[in-house]
Amino acid sequence: MRASEIRELLKLLEKPGITSFAGGVPDPALFPIARVNAAYATTLADEKTAASGLQYSTSEGYAPLRAWIASRMRSEGVPAQRENILITSGSQQALEFLGKLFLDAGDTALVTAPTYLGALQAFAAYEPRYDTVRPGTGNETPDVLRANATANGGAAKFIYLVPDFANPTGETLSRAAREQALALAGELDVPIIEDAAYAALRFEGEAQPSLQALSCARHGDINQSRVIYCGTFSKTLTPGLRVGWVCASEAIIRRLVLIKQACDLNSSLINQMIMHGLAEGDFDGQVARARTHYRARRDAMLDALAAAAVPGMTWTRPEGGLFVWVTLPDGIDAADLLPRAIEEAGVAFVPGGAFFTDGSGRNTLRLSYSLAGEDQIRAGIAKLCALITAA
Amino acid sequence: MRASEIRELLKLLEKPGITSFAGGVPDPALFPIARVNAAYATTLADEKTAASGLQYSTSEGYAPLRAWIASRMRSEGVPAQRENILITSGSQQALEFLGKLFLDAGDTALVTAPTYLGALQAFAAYEPRYDTVRPGTGNETPDVLRANATANGGAAKFIYLVPDFANPTGETLSRAAREQALALAGELDVPIIEDAAYAALRFEGEAQPSLQALSCARHGDINQSRVIYCGTFSKTLTPGLRVGWVCASEAIIRRLVLIKQACDLNSSLINQMIMHGLAEGDFDGQVARARTHYRARRDAMLDALAAAAVPGMTWTRPEGGLFVWVTLPDGIDAADLLPRAIEEAGVAFVPGGAFFTDGSGRNTLRLSYSLAGEDQIRAGIAKLCALITAA
Repeated sequence: MRASEIRELLKLLEKPGITSFAGGVPDPALFPIARVNAAYATTLADEKTAASGLQYSTSEGYAPLRAWIASRMRSEGVPAQRENILITSGSQQALEFLGKLFLDAGDTALVTAPTYLGALQAFAAYEPRYDTVRPGTGNETPDVLRANATANGGAAKFIYLVPDFANPTGETLSRAAREQALALAGELDVPIIEDAAYAALRFEGEAQPSLQALSCARHGDINQSRVIYCGTFSKTLTPGLRVGWVCASEAIIRRLVLIKQACDLNSSLINQMIMHGLAEGDFDGQVARARTHYRARRDAMLDALAAAAVPGMTWTRPEGGLFVWVTLPDGIDAADLLPRAIEEAGVAFVPGGAFFTDGSGRNTLRLSYSLAGEDQIRAGIAKLCALITAA
Repeated sequence: MRASEIRELLKLLEKPGITSFAGGVPDPALFPIARVNAAYATTLADEKTAASGLQYSTSEGYAPLRAWIASRMRSEGVPAQRENILITSGSQQALEFLGKLFLDAGDTALVTAPTYLGALQAFAAYEPRYDTVRPGTGNETPDVLRANATANGGAAKFIYLVPDFANPTGETLSRAAREQALALAGELDVPIIEDAAYAALRFEGEAQPSLQALSCARHGDINQSRVIYCGTFSKTLTPGLRVGWVCASEAIIRRLVLIKQACDLNSSLINQMIMHGLAEGDFDGQVARARTHYRARRDAMLDALAAAAVPGMTWTRPEGGLFVWVTLPDGIDAADLLPRAIEEAGVAFVPGGAFFTDGSGRNTLRLSYSLAGEDQIRAGIAKLCALITAA
């Protein structure tokens, strides 16, 4: 099932009466609408600020927002300065820029299986091949990975990971797996792209240091780090302002700034100003509310799965983020199941095959608990499991 | 002088006391700040609209804005429907997408000399070579252009033109030149990318039909047109919301939608909603104000040039837009002149060599009259001409 087909299918879900576990979008009930409104009003009331916010601006991004993000990164063990931050239009844009920066046709991108579909879409324009890494569960040796890449006429160019509450699996890399990934990157002499889209949304368990924090600790300096951290406000504050960031060495940021300039000149400055106001105002409060909100939904989903699961069906227990990953009994194809799930159970999900680069994972599916309320989740999971039982 | 060097240099211009004729940015005095403020307040006051505006949205763009643009295009002779419109983050993003869609390394992009620097930057990632077209003044034959492209291991993939009040020259293609460009595109069987960034800002003379309008008339249907029209609100309403568009055949739009999705998912929906409100509210009034405003500045610049020009110095007379293009007497290098102009005359411009792909144009420069008031323009041009006289 191709990305564009899934996209068409997801459009069908806008029908009323469908409980969608498909999208990975945040619950708009959490958007700080009143604060957004107040921030625009304040910013636009001052004529000088307004004129600047509505003008073209620097490709690097709004300096106070970059400084705020750097300070936040420092509080998480990453010794970043403003010069280590580039503002992007969501972290999707950062992934696309990194594909452009690193990949030539035939090069290899090292990814997990499954991995984030949007990253595959972002990299696709640069025609890479993919090889699989399994941090924590046993990688191929660097020599094998290198030889595979060379045999295909290119080189391994980076490792792409979603270490916290991954899209699509909801799983989190252990400390040991993180160290192992960094060691592999060192042996291959490639950067790691750390996609931290969900990292702030931890409900339980101990927070792991980011790959960027660990790499900075290894190298003693962010400008020597081989991690390129992609962050976003989309999952904590709102995706609608399109504000994400890259935190990396100054050398990488300078190259990305030129790419940003060529691609769209700059992200909307007024939106960056608003995001800065929101972040400075109550980022921690907003994150706390989101954690409480999504934890209750995750609990509802896990409880409902435990109550109704079919023998042979397994699922992940995410410590944060928005996703549960389900493995169906052998022989059940999730892509075949989906139309029936929509039609007969009024429930939608994303078939897991979409997240693999090699056609595997046909008996897997991704469930998001971000949009449905707890009662809906319980009812929807029960109906889905009943359908699987009958399958 | 490379784009990145120019960029560094332009940063120096933020000093007070410098009259900048360098940037091509609109005058913020024209931004409809009060209307922007009111539009945000109204949009965010309704909880449902706000929640939708702050969420992820479709890659195609906000349907009512696409419909408004299609209707506007129809009023200009282009039979467009909503399905022919993609919203982009400024027209710079459209240029980058089109580079991605059409160009492989070694392919040829056909451009004028000089041409818009940002287009060269947008295309650069795809490693094209350039060949020159001269609509209206005599192109190479299609056979020669094709042979040149083949000799370089690629193919001619598109013609890129800024037909109205071009950046950097301020010049406008005649009707005959437009027809000739379309004929050439037909003979080469390539699309034309029409960059219409300044098209709305006509001060005088008769408006020419867009290449898109002429192509639709030739083919009887926009879905058969070979023109890809890139428009923007940046020069008429405000660049700060980052809203531009592509108007092309549905087949092209569908391919660009997939690129948009991979690159940044979607442009900020709340910004598109605001832009729709602004456009629907008073687009014609806004355009009329901008025309009056910039015409007075153009007049001041042309008068000052006529009063103080050095023998052998020539310049264009733009009928709209933001730029005058100056050719200096032979032997004067504009890149050498620039540091002295800043230092001794307190005046900045962009050396013209930056807009050529072949190192020529060293005795040319681009002047923008968009930011300086009339008195400043008169004084600045007098000082610049005095410096050139002494050179």
